Amino acid sequence: MSSTINLYPLSNFTFSTKENQPEEDPSVSARLQRLQNNYEDYGMRRTVEGVLIVHDHGHPHILMLQIANAFFKLPGDYLKPGEDEYEGLKRLLDEKLAPPGEAMLETVENDWEVGDCLAQWWRPNFETFMYPFVPAHITKPKECKKLFIVQMPEKKVLAVPKNMKLLAIPLFELYDNAARYGPQLSAIPHLLSRYNFIYQ
Amino acid sequence: MSSTINLYPLSNFTFSTKENQPEEDPSVSARLQRLQNNYEDYGMRRTVEGVLIVHDHGHPHILMLQIANAFFKLPGDYLKPGEDEYEGLKRLLDEKLAPPGEAMLETVENDWEVGDCLAQWWRPNFETFMYPFVPAHITKPKECKKLFIVQMPEKKVLAVPKNMKLLAIPLFELYDNAARYGPQLSAIPHLLSRYNFIYQ
Repeated sequence: MSSTINLYPLSNFTFSTKENQPEEDPSVSARLQRLQNNYEDYGMRRTVEGVLIVHDHGHPHILMLQIANAFFKLPGDYLKPGEDEYEGLKRLLDEKLAPPGEAMLETVENDWEVGDCLAQWWRPNFETFMYPFVPAHITKPKECKKLFIVQMPEKKVLAVPKNMKLLAIPLFELYDNAARYGPQLSAIPHLLSRYNFIYQ
Repeated sequence: MSSTINLYPLSNFTFSTKENQPEEDPSVSARLQRLQNNYEDYGMRRTVEGVLIVHDHGHPHILMLQIANAFFKLPGDYLKPGEDEYEGLKRLLDEKLAPPGEAMLETVENDWEVGDCLAQWWRPNFETFMYPFVPAHITKPKECKKLFIVQMPEKKVLAVPKNMKLLAIPLFELYDNAARYGPQLSAIPHLLSRYNFIYQ
């Protein structure tokens, strides 16, 4: 009763570039301040990110954005107040990875196929730490981030903002490597282990 | 679309004891030798374990067996050749935790409710290391271990072999604590994070 996912080879995907997408906040403290301001206006921030999987020589790889040759992140961001999480994730995936113009012209062929929720991470305070559970005595978390599996089609063109790189990171590189990728990204191999992959 | 799980308080469960269940093998090397012998006779070992969750003061706890005041493990073990994984896990949960006599008298009331597969771990060689993916170039893993969520009923009597202790370990204790619990048990908070718990 394990779920099955088709993986297509990295070489099936075409990568192009598009305009820079600068970070919204210039520093971590500015980001936490915006979180606090938004919390006062709208309540808990809801963030969604996509786990896009391909394979290279029969081993699963995750598509990740690298910002300024430094930190890694999954495509996604926070939702607008009241926005549906599936529709919002599709909007954010288009923003980060769709070729210019395609995002405005949604068709069945270029729509994103968002699947299972893989994990939830909670931010108990206006601080950098997040946990994969709501810590004891925390009744009002400040942010909830959900990771969703995104089933990649057989082929696709992905356009990457010029200030970022899109990298395919193998599971064996992420595994047990919180030192390089942090607690959230290094846990992805665990979250995917229940799936059986079919290498197309 | 996150799944929901009812958690009942630890105080709803009654714990009794039953006869010793000594480890099948006297050492790690004997265990690996038996694995190799069984592999030659029956092929890849299939192991199943149950993740039983309760709550204490509104925080999830996992029921774990502690052997000889030393290492921790989930209830479960390896399946017989050809045995169904659901039926096998129920047999093994009975063996470890059912009061004597009850295992022989299965009723709807005392049956185990085995749910989703949470993770799979593969052993590529006749060695102690396991990974949450099949490592590259490994075509014949020697063991596959699956973890299943087991939905606990509102109340239950659990009988624990006298040479073991049954402990309820909070998620916050397991999280980021591979040093004490090893890579498999310390990943359980990640694996459960996609569920929304209802504290009964």
